[in-house]
Amino acid sequence: MKYAYEMQRLQALCVEKGHLCVGLDTDISYLPPEIIRLYDSPADAVEAFNLAVIESTAPYAVCYKVQIAYYEALGYSGMKCYANTLKAVRAAGIPVIADIKRGDIADTASAYARAHFSGDFEADIVTLNPYMGFDTLAPFVEWIDRKGKGAFVLLRTSNPGMNDIERLPLDKGFIPKRLAEAFPAEIKDSSKPVHVLDAVGQGLSALMEPYLDKTASGNPEGAGGCPPCAPFGAVVGCTDSTDARIIRDRYRNLFFLIPGYGAQGGAADIAAALLAEAGGVVNSSRGIICSWKKDSSLAIKASSGTLTLSEIAESAGRAAFSAKAEISAAVKNSAAGTGV
Amino acid sequence: MKYAYEMQRLQALCVEKGHLCVGLDTDISYLPPEIIRLYDSPADAVEAFNLAVIESTAPYAVCYKVQIAYYEALGYSGMKCYANTLKAVRAAGIPVIADIKRGDIADTASAYARAHFSGDFEADIVTLNPYMGFDTLAPFVEWIDRKGKGAFVLLRTSNPGMNDIERLPLDKGFIPKRLAEAFPAEIKDSSKPVHVLDAVGQGLSALMEPYLDKTASGNPEGAGGCPPCAPFGAVVGCTDSTDARIIRDRYRNLFFLIPGYGAQGGAADIAAALLAEAGGVVNSSRGIICSWKKDSSLAIKASSGTLTLSEIAESAGRAAFSAKAEISAAVKNSAAGTGV
Repeated sequence: MKYAYEMQRLQALCVEKGHLCVGLDTDISYLPPEIIRLYDSPADAVEAFNLAVIESTAPYAVCYKVQIAYYEALGYSGMKCYANTLKAVRAAGIPVIADIKRGDIADTASAYARAHFSGDFEADIVTLNPYMGFDTLAPFVEWIDRKGKGAFVLLRTSNPGMNDIERLPLDKGFIPKRLAEAFPAEIKDSSKPVHVLDAVGQGLSALMEPYLDKTASGNPEGAGGCPPCAPFGAVVGCTDSTDARIIRDRYRNLFFLIPGYGAQGGAADIAAALLAEAGGVVNSSRGIICSWKKDSSLAIKASSGTLTLSEIAESAGRAAFSAKAEISAAVKNSAAGTGV
Repeated sequence: MKYAYEMQRLQALCVEKGHLCVGLDTDISYLPPEIIRLYDSPADAVEAFNLAVIESTAPYAVCYKVQIAYYEALGYSGMKCYANTLKAVRAAGIPVIADIKRGDIADTASAYARAHFSGDFEADIVTLNPYMGFDTLAPFVEWIDRKGKGAFVLLRTSNPGMNDIERLPLDKGFIPKRLAEAFPAEIKDSSKPVHVLDAVGQGLSALMEPYLDKTASGNPEGAGGCPPCAPFGAVVGCTDSTDARIIRDRYRNLFFLIPGYGAQGGAADIAAALLAEAGGVVNSSRGIICSWKKDSSLAIKASSGTLTLSEIAESAGRAAFSAKAEISAAVKNSAAGTGV
């Protein structure tokens, strides 16, 4: 089936393949020295590692997320490795999310959109930072409309610092009219704060509205049995079950990219709460790519410095299989009313 | 004199050289086709352009700001051009600000700090996006402490969308205690809102406090006659004079990176208001690097496609001279009480 937007393709793939997004946030320190020394440069080692992990995890990953910071940290050879990693995922026919968290204005935002939706660093979907306002999203929207790309915008992240800005309460008496109108129940009820992140959520909801009409089921280019889906989604961390329920309830049409599961301490049942309604994908990075460090079957080889890349990749494959199964089980429990 | 931090060096340089930051936001479309075709690739053309502009503007620029988006848009050859541009500025002994606006958590933030404070993409100072919270700044603080680097954090940007998030009013009754304590006058007075950007400003002020003690005049490593200066500053756009006065008044110790002057419509008198107290640098990008497009002395050559790189660079030099003079005059007027 042909999808108008990468985000629809991803949503449809979730029905077949589950919700696991494998994060290729490959810091060089995640590789054992015996692997690194086989290659001419750290970037070459990371690239070989990524390609092996992609091959072993592809049956269980609905998509991949590549965190560009780790590649920038390796200089321009790292950027080549980044480009080749994106290409490998796309060549496997799997959607790839560039975790770039860019956010800038006007011509600069256009340059970022061009950088990450075409050329060497072309990805299917990007992550964006909304701090500077919604005009920073506009150049990405143009590419979304023209090339069917997608974007996840930061809403509520999984780090402790999300309380510093994202979760500050807004003064309901002085917020813009569009924002007040979007939260009628919250405006009346002093126990229900409207947070900074809700301003982002409201802006995103407004941005998606025209797409929801176009992609509603029945449309020949729509995502079939899936709920209507826009090419925008939101990043919502799974580190707090109360927040998860409130946010899922407020943004039923938003497809979520859910970080924080696994190594960051987020639990599958919180992820499952966020996967209700329009759904989403749950990212695990270190839980998969560093699984060899905790893999008891590899302990002797790891301590004697004799691990091979295929053993590491197989361990990542097993971890991906387990993560996918754990998330699916949590979704089933949640649907049966036994989740958070 | 040896400075403990790049930000102190920059502040001291302002006393000698004025406040003009030349922005090398070099989109390939800013070069005439007759220049582009002289080079093997767009990235090579941009690099030659940048090096020529750096040479012609260096007498008038207190620092340079390189907007990474335009280089990412040229793929990995663009990243090489980006690295070489940073190197050229640093080789000239002038501080260079990498306008990267990164913001991410934990290990990822560490990777970004490593990427932009060392290796191929090493800059002296970076710009950062605070949306995800203050823990995202911590890895940069480590590099600041260890290598004397600096960071400007986005506070109030120069785009219309800054009203969407940055300038939303916070609920004073429910903000964290540290924030309420930082704004005693505003808490009492309903006509004085505390905005989202003030949460960023308060966080930054708290982060700088220990540095202000260390760098106060009298300290042998301090910036001499300059007011105390921390290695952190804030990005504050010069597009509104009322906002400029309020923000300068609330954050007297913060050194500002001031975009929006020139092509974005910001006026020198607003910039001058922001340059009071701890001071700052005023960025002009297109106003300098695209000056050849509006340079009447080059009009005939521009329309006949016979411009040379040195003519373009000389035009940028003249534009930098004028911008520097205009800003200095506005600062003098402002000090004499005739400014905004």
